[in-house]
Amino acid sequence: MRFDVLTLFPEFISSYFDFSIMKRAKDENIVELNVVNPRDYTENKHKKVDDTPYGGGAGMVLMPQPYVDAYNSIEKYDNSVTVMLSPQGEPLSENLVLDLARYSQIIMLCGHYEGFDERIRDIIKPKEISIGDFVLTGGELPALCLIDAVSRKIEGTLGKIESANEDSFSNGLLEYPQYTKPRNFRGYNVPEVLLNGNHKDINEFRLNEQLKRTKEKRPDLYEKYLKEKS
Amino acid sequence: MRFDVLTLFPEFISSYFDFSIMKRAKDENIVELNVVNPRDYTENKHKKVDDTPYGGGAGMVLMPQPYVDAYNSIEKYDNSVTVMLSPQGEPLSENLVLDLARYSQIIMLCGHYEGFDERIRDIIKPKEISIGDFVLTGGELPALCLIDAVSRKIEGTLGKIESANEDSFSNGLLEYPQYTKPRNFRGYNVPEVLLNGNHKDINEFRLNEQLKRTKEKRPDLYEKYLKEKS
Repeated sequence: MRFDVLTLFPEFISSYFDFSIMKRAKDENIVELNVVNPRDYTENKHKKVDDTPYGGGAGMVLMPQPYVDAYNSIEKYDNSVTVMLSPQGEPLSENLVLDLARYSQIIMLCGHYEGFDERIRDIIKPKEISIGDFVLTGGELPALCLIDAVSRKIEGTLGKIESANEDSFSNGLLEYPQYTKPRNFRGYNVPEVLLNGNHKDINEFRLNEQLKRTKEKRPDLYEKYLKEKS
Repeated sequence: MRFDVLTLFPEFISSYFDFSIMKRAKDENIVELNVVNPRDYTENKHKKVDDTPYGGGAGMVLMPQPYVDAYNSIEKYDNSVTVMLSPQGEPLSENLVLDLARYSQIIMLCGHYEGFDERIRDIIKPKEISIGDFVLTGGELPALCLIDAVSRKIEGTLGKIESANEDSFSNGLLEYPQYTKPRNFRGYNVPEVLLNGNHKDINEFRLNEQLKRTKEKRPDLYEKYLKEKS
């Protein structure tokens, strides 16, 4: 999987690949990162990438020329998708993550400040994706969320000690409670059922906990689960 | 506002404060960051912070001792809230962001790998917050999303050139299209109405665009807007 990220903050995007699974995935050539700074493509003599909005209003708007030319500079694979991170996009979900993981290249456009000149959308026609109904300063954190979530689905990214199949949402429910050493921590004990080695009992305990938690914390997911079951 | 972050990847959290508005907010003492690594608090001689789950299963579970002791080491302000970033939490929204911005300290627990030993929840009793129904490798990106979104609401963080009031969702609708220079970019023109200086016309155009986009892209938000209007 190749990730191309258009961003005004290339160092921050790159730094995520210095840690944890992204570092390993990059070192093992499972993922490849290419970061492009639209500022390097501006024809403006002051290297400007934004300007005031037509029609007035606070904030700055990202100019079309640097973004479109930076985008055009990127080599496109056959099986490529272009994503704009924006609060207007389709909300990111595990299903959307799985769809994206099927591509061999994801090109991401990160906005900053007040957003993109609309003609960037008109010309590039990206798929717009939002990570939630809250506003961030830029698209960098959403792009990294997308990269992290998608990378987890690519074979080889997660080591044997990790597992994508037992994550939250993998069966439509929230995760069951987990316990590790010690058995007794300052008076708080690990539930007996997890210690007796009876896998039928353990599975039953875990599924019941998943159902209980999901019903309590996310009734919307619980309803959806029941519907899909029946 | 003081942010305390418990994380196994302190450098990554700190690096976000080297850029853009977070750098400025930190330099101007509007926000303060304290990063604590539970690995520095482990009593385990191999500096381990995780172990295999009781009851079996893939993945590693974060042990209670390093997290609880790291948490206890943090000085708590009077008006403090503790947040665990987790897919099981309340979904982050602009309203939740506004609630959080009223505190003077937000302590965040970032998980990694398969999640927390349940007793960390039992003992610390954090408010659990999720940034969306997708799975990430750790709580670091969600914590930074929360920090970024909350910081935007604190007076002084955004400069005059930026504005939180004209963001998406600030009136319950998606943002209107923005345009900046040039008027004509490779055959794509800025809409005439934005050029004639008639503010009544401009406001009408923008509100209509907001309604149109929200209805098309996010019918759920559109319904909610209509309900709240009537």
